[in-house]
Amino acid sequence: MGRAPRLPGSVAVLGLGLMGGSLALDLRARGVRVIGWDRPDVRRRARRRGLIDVAASSAGAAARQAELVVLAAPPTVNVRLLRGLARLGADGPTVTDLGSVKRPIVAEARRLGLRRFVGGHPIAGSERSGMAAARAGLFDGRAWALTPAPGTSPRALRTVARLARALGARPVRQLAAAEHDRALAFLSHLPQVVAWALLAVAQGDPVARRHLALAGSGFRDMTRLARSPRGLWRQILAENSAEVARAARALRAALARRR
Amino acid sequence: MGRAPRLPGSVAVLGLGLMGGSLALDLRARGVRVIGWDRPDVRRRARRRGLIDVAASSAGAAARQAELVVLAAPPTVNVRLLRGLARLGADGPTVTDLGSVKRPIVAEARRLGLRRFVGGHPIAGSERSGMAAARAGLFDGRAWALTPAPGTSPRALRTVARLARALGARPVRQLAAAEHDRALAFLSHLPQVVAWALLAVAQGDPVARRHLALAGSGFRDMTRLARSPRGLWRQILAENSAEVARAARALRAALARRR
Repeated sequence: MGRAPRLPGSVAVLGLGLMGGSLALDLRARGVRVIGWDRPDVRRRARRRGLIDVAASSAGAAARQAELVVLAAPPTVNVRLLRGLARLGADGPTVTDLGSVKRPIVAEARRLGLRRFVGGHPIAGSERSGMAAARAGLFDGRAWALTPAPGTSPRALRTVARLARALGARPVRQLAAAEHDRALAFLSHLPQVVAWALLAVAQGDPVARRHLALAGSGFRDMTRLARSPRGLWRQILAENSAEVARAARALRAALARRR
Repeated sequence: MGRAPRLPGSVAVLGLGLMGGSLALDLRARGVRVIGWDRPDVRRRARRRGLIDVAASSAGAAARQAELVVLAAPPTVNVRLLRGLARLGADGPTVTDLGSVKRPIVAEARRLGLRRFVGGHPIAGSERSGMAAARAGLFDGRAWALTPAPGTSPRALRTVARLARALGARPVRQLAAAEHDRALAFLSHLPQVVAWALLAVAQGDPVARRHLALAGSGFRDMTRLARSPRGLWRQILAENSAEVARAARALRAALARRR
C-alpha cells in the first residue's frame, strides 16, 4: 500500500487513557519518541508499561520536547491545555486533539490565533476507557475526522493527516467543525444517550426489572454503550448540547409517529 | 450435566424459518422424527437440506403424525394454526409456540379450551431470518420463557420444559403471559423500534446522512436490529402495542429529561 507516511520524530501525548495510550503504543512501535503526560500515578504506570519513552512532569514540559502535541484528555481539559500551549508562540509544535466534539476547541484555537492547531477525531472510541483498555492497532481501518478552520496552517494539516494514515486510519478532511458536531450528534452522541435511557427505563419498570434475564443479544447490543464513562460523556454532551438536543427531538418525534 | 431430558418421538414444526428451522435441526440431531410444514417451496427446500424427515402437505397432516406440535410461524399465522389444531380434540398432541408476544395466543388457547397448549418464547432471535439463517445450537444457553395459564395441563408444561432443556436452554416457568409481554416490550420490542428510529433520523438529517462514514461501532451496534424483517415485526408490535406504547412513553420521557 505504498510508502509509510513520514512521522514526526517526537510526539507529546497529553492524556494516557484509551485513546492517548493506544496512540502512544502505535507511535512507539513505529520508532517515534513519545513523551507522555497525565496525572503522576497514571504517567508513571504508562512509563512502566512501556507505552511512553518519557513521563513529563507538566504538559508544557512535554510539549517543549515534541514536534507534535496530541491532546488526548477529556474535552474541557483539552481546551485548558490548548491555552497553555498557545504561550509557546507561533513556532511551537503542531497541535491536534482526539475529542468527540470539535466546535469549542476549534473556536478556542481561532480565538488564540493558534494556526498550528488542527481539530481531529478518530472514530475509534468504545464503551471501554482508561489506560488498561489501550491497545495497539486501535485506529487501524477507522475514519479520522480532521476539521481545519479557515486560518489553519496547511503544513499542520498535512502533519496530522500523515499521523492518521501512518496509524492505518482514513483521514476525512475538509469537514467543518459545525458539520462534524451535527453529524456526530446523530451517529454517536444520541446513540450514547439512548443506550443509557433504554437501560434506565427497563430497570425502572418493576416488571421488566424482575425479568432482565429475558434480555437477548439485541438488548445487550443496544445497551453496551451504557457502560461508557459517565464523567467524560457528561462533558461531551454538554459541549454539543444544541446538536444533541436537535437529534433527540428528531428521535422523540420518530418514536411518537410509530405509536 | 445429568441425563438428557426425554424428548417426544415425533415433533411437527409449523414454520421453517430461523427459529423453526433451527429447532428442526436440533431435534433431528437428537433422533426425533421431525415433520415439517411451511409453504410448498419452503418445505421442499427444508426436506432437501435435511432439516426435516417429512414435508407435510398441510398443518393438520403434520400435527396428526406428531406427539408435539411447535408453532414457529409469524404470530398471526400461529393463532390461525392454533384454531385448526383445536379440532383434533382433547387427546391431540401437546402444542407450543415460539412467538415474541404471548397474550394473544394464550388467550386464544383459553378461548378454545385447549389445555394442551403452552405458550413459549426462546430468547434466541436476531436480525437474521428465514431458513437460510437456521443453524444447530441456536437455543443453547438461552432463556426460554414458558407462560402457562391457570388451565394449562401440567403434563403439557413438563413436555415443553423438557424440550427447552434438551436443546440446552433454561426454561423460565411460571411467567404470566401479561408479565412476559410487558417485560419484552422493554427488553426487545422497544429496542427494535429504537434501532429503526435511530437509523431513520440519522438518514433523515442532511448533514448526518452525508457523513454516515463517520459512524463507529456504537452506531453499528445500535442499528444492527434495523435489518430485522419488517413484516414479522409489524405483527409483533401490533400484537403488543399497548405495552410497547408504555415503554416508548417511558423512553421519550427519559430522553426529554436529559435535555
